[in-house]
Amino acid sequence: MGERERVALLRHVLAPRGALPGVVRLGIGDDCAVFEPTTEPFVVSVDTVVEHVHFRRSMLSMQDLGYRATMGALSDLAAMGATAMGVLSALILPEDVDDEALEALAQGQAQACSELGTAVVGGNLARGGELSITTTVLGQVAEPLRRDGACPGHCLCVAGPLGLAAAGLRLLLEAPDRADEEAFRPAVEAWRRPRARMAEGGRLLGRASAAIDVSDGLGLDASRLAEASGCRIVVEARELVCPELAAAAEALGADALSVALGGGEDYALLATVPEGVEVEGFLRIGRCEAGPPGVMVERADGTLAPATDGGWDHFR
Amino acid sequence: MGERERVALLRHVLAPRGALPGVVRLGIGDDCAVFEPTTEPFVVSVDTVVEHVHFRRSMLSMQDLGYRATMGALSDLAAMGATAMGVLSALILPEDVDDEALEALAQGQAQACSELGTAVVGGNLARGGELSITTTVLGQVAEPLRRDGACPGHCLCVAGPLGLAAAGLRLLLEAPDRADEEAFRPAVEAWRRPRARMAEGGRLLGRASAAIDVSDGLGLDASRLAEASGCRIVVEARELVCPELAAAAEALGADALSVALGGGEDYALLATVPEGVEVEGFLRIGRCEAGPPGVMVERADGTLAPATDGGWDHFR
Repeated sequence: MGERERVALLRHVLAPRGALPGVVRLGIGDDCAVFEPTTEPFVVSVDTVVEHVHFRRSMLSMQDLGYRATMGALSDLAAMGATAMGVLSALILPEDVDDEALEALAQGQAQACSELGTAVVGGNLARGGELSITTTVLGQVAEPLRRDGACPGHCLCVAGPLGLAAAGLRLLLEAPDRADEEAFRPAVEAWRRPRARMAEGGRLLGRASAAIDVSDGLGLDASRLAEASGCRIVVEARELVCPELAAAAEALGADALSVALGGGEDYALLATVPEGVEVEGFLRIGRCEAGPPGVMVERADGTLAPATDGGWDHFR
Repeated sequence: MGERERVALLRHVLAPRGALPGVVRLGIGDDCAVFEPTTEPFVVSVDTVVEHVHFRRSMLSMQDLGYRATMGALSDLAAMGATAMGVLSALILPEDVDDEALEALAQGQAQACSELGTAVVGGNLARGGELSITTTVLGQVAEPLRRDGACPGHCLCVAGPLGLAAAGLRLLLEAPDRADEEAFRPAVEAWRRPRARMAEGGRLLGRASAAIDVSDGLGLDASRLAEASGCRIVVEARELVCPELAAAAEALGADALSVALGGGEDYALLATVPEGVEVEGFLRIGRCEAGPPGVMVERADGTLAPATDGGWDHFR
């Protein structure tokens, strides 16, 4: 297929049964997508996944790939407490991505969008040597949550697993023949089919002092929040490891706590809330204190240690 | 440098002397950029350039690369008649793009944005094997120009050169030792330093029935406009070749008219206007007629021929 036919194919797969979300005036097919004026501030973010860096095609289906790329990008909206308005998808496609694979990729994107009440409304196709998906997401929210509002005395809480997707990824890399086992399904699915926690993000509005999504690992993302807010974050180790992570870590011969601290791509939501404020779906895992910005881990025995910067850094 | 330091470097280079455009509430540094509510519709587009497909690093400086990637993306806003609100930049960086090269790239992006009164307000950094720049652009406009409004009887007009950038690219590819010659500077600069024609796009508002930017070649982009509008476009050949293109085409042994019809990346603006309407900066180059959607070229002797689909198609 030529570019024109491929755009037509994508338009067909991505059009949400002909109906655009109400905020979208014009979708795929012109120089730009057109959105209706907003009464609230709108937020925009962009995220890229690259073959051999973020995934190998042997590890997941093309539907999974489209789904997880889209959810990973939408997670940035969740971290601001926003609802999704629309998604743009820029693909770099090597020659060996055939029309069928492209269609499957788009189906995964459409499914992720549909689950969150939005749609792909524009994008770009380019030829290249390396498969990548760059996803732009737009959302709206009256008072966007930010990273810089955490205060000493506030609690640290999280929605979603920590390190489970990283364990799933390591299983696929290090023990691919065991990755199908029932016990490891939660970990592998956490990596293949992550979920942007929009509902949970919405519940933080008016309650949380700061929020961020855990895309690069709890240690690293908590340190970003601590740095932006100018306070110290103490993570309490005893609540971090879920049973599914423990099972996967044991099979990998890995330290489960390290995986929970260092693993990204679960797209858990991390937030700080004033003491006594409960938010449905969030579990308390620590606290903010006065002190030099950084992240400490409080072990079960009460001792403190600096959280090693084990999260994902693209340039180290 | 690690990712954190690189983000800090980019933030420094891209911050428009500390001041964000008025429509931007929050720039680089959180999960999303935050824009103020708009009273007008807003428009969004995304564009990607990939090494070895769209450019080779030997052909241009990293500043040029950042500049042209940004202008190429902003051109989609010009085609809707919009003014720019903000830009997001998603980079895939191979190991051999060092910090100095990254800084130069960002300087080119910042310069392009600054010339059009906007700024890079967010983005993403990823490691990869192949250098690419994916640029998301946001703009606003009360009545966005579209591709689908051309009517029989309207004139086709253009702002900006046609085929000149393509000739410059061919000089750099086929005769790199001659590309420095003074006579070829306009062609080479047209490719290295294209300009998004925002002012010209703004002048089309309330006057043009349809518009598109010429990113993939006059033949292909005019056919997109013809198809969307459901009419036939006749391009009058006699006005298409500018003297600078003629000089470059002669040196290349190429047919100048074919280059003018097939060459993209000048980011000229193509528009249709009712007969008798003049728009400053636009030159009449043809007309719309009733008939099956498509593009015909009218030669100097008055004969008609189908415009061959010589524009850039990524998948042919």
